[in-house]
Amino acid sequence: MPFRASVLTLYPEMFPGPLGVSLAGEGLRKGLWSLDTHQIRDHGIGRHRNVDDNPAGGGAGMVLRCDVLAAAIDAAVPADDMRPRLLMSPRGRRLDQGLVREWVAGEGVVIVCGRFEGVDERVIEGRDLTEISVGDYILSGGEMAALLLLDACVRLIPGVMGKELSGQDESFENGLLEYPHYTRPREWEGRGLPEALLSGDHARIARWRREQAETITRKRRPDLIGKV
Amino acid sequence: MPFRASVLTLYPEMFPGPLGVSLAGEGLRKGLWSLDTHQIRDHGIGRHRNVDDNPAGGGAGMVLRCDVLAAAIDAAVPADDMRPRLLMSPRGRRLDQGLVREWVAGEGVVIVCGRFEGVDERVIEGRDLTEISVGDYILSGGEMAALLLLDACVRLIPGVMGKELSGQDESFENGLLEYPHYTRPREWEGRGLPEALLSGDHARIARWRREQAETITRKRRPDLIGKV
Repeated sequence: MPFRASVLTLYPEMFPGPLGVSLAGEGLRKGLWSLDTHQIRDHGIGRHRNVDDNPAGGGAGMVLRCDVLAAAIDAAVPADDMRPRLLMSPRGRRLDQGLVREWVAGEGVVIVCGRFEGVDERVIEGRDLTEISVGDYILSGGEMAALLLLDACVRLIPGVMGKELSGQDESFENGLLEYPHYTRPREWEGRGLPEALLSGDHARIARWRREQAETITRKRRPDLIGKV
Repeated sequence: MPFRASVLTLYPEMFPGPLGVSLAGEGLRKGLWSLDTHQIRDHGIGRHRNVDDNPAGGGAGMVLRCDVLAAAIDAAVPADDMRPRLLMSPRGRRLDQGLVREWVAGEGVVIVCGRFEGVDERVIEGRDLTEISVGDYILSGGEMAALLLLDACVRLIPGVMGKELSGQDESFENGLLEYPHYTRPREWEGRGLPEALLSGDHARIARWRREQAETITRKRRPDLIGKV
């Protein structure tokens, strides 16, 4: 069964959005992966379909109600659906390439997009949601993070990227940032190519790239060194 | 002058995409911020408008040519344009809320979206591009990262979020993850509200939230402790 993404959101019109373009979009049309969206507001309360309310204990912002979100989840996801249920949240476990690979190896993901100040904590526990953060910054809602997460997943689905799938993955796997890339022209604005790359000596080129990757990683992301 | 975003990409049809919806989209239509996209391929070489070539020294993937990208940048961005020129790249400095605030306080950003294996290193130096990473995962290209970065910026532009702009920012500012949120109903599936939140005692509520935020941060993100 192909990778299936189910997204619960107050803005289903944001999907597939940029994922409908380029290779991800082609893969979607070819059925290499699928996407269904679910409007949380359909489960809102009363004539105005309210989904949020003031925070218990006071304070700024609005909180997404647990009963509304639980009803939306229960309607969208059968109880025997074994896909991980993710809640995009800056409090969550940080997304990394290992998680992406794990999900792509499975049947897909359910993604809940929060808005407002946050989501009532009880639904996180009661519906077994795993909070995932794409980084240490604040977004207007979970939708953009969901699109990003799906982009990272979709490019790894067999057939989606074809031969454009590059060596970048190994690059992150060995725990180093990528070495610098060069292509034609041989000289540009007085800048040439590194001599090693012109040598035709494959061992020397591999050594040069490894050294460059190590140097860049040590300089920019010392936290990655020794992690793998 | 309102915040202005200029995006160089091979997929201009991805923009504004999800940023054209909801409050960010309203802000765009009201002129609270602006977005212009520039097709890199317009500066491609020959009849086929080629933008990439094989990596110098061999290897998988294709590399975006420095001369093509430089021509696209020069055409889109006047020499006296003082906005930061960002290149979305997993090798870059990690995006954080401090950078977002810095950019929003300025005139806007120029964002170059890479594709393929990478971008010829010489254009990064020659056009003074700052590499920015949204996280330790690989995307199909820089476009989704650019949308994410702009979402983080746009929500801070005065007038865009209105009163929906919540206290989340302070939360990241004090270097802690957010405390748990609750709202109505008072009981749901046998789960009540924390007693402190029902006390009506503002000092006690503030103390409880602070303790919760500290506990969650220590458990989930010990790397944040003591950073601020």
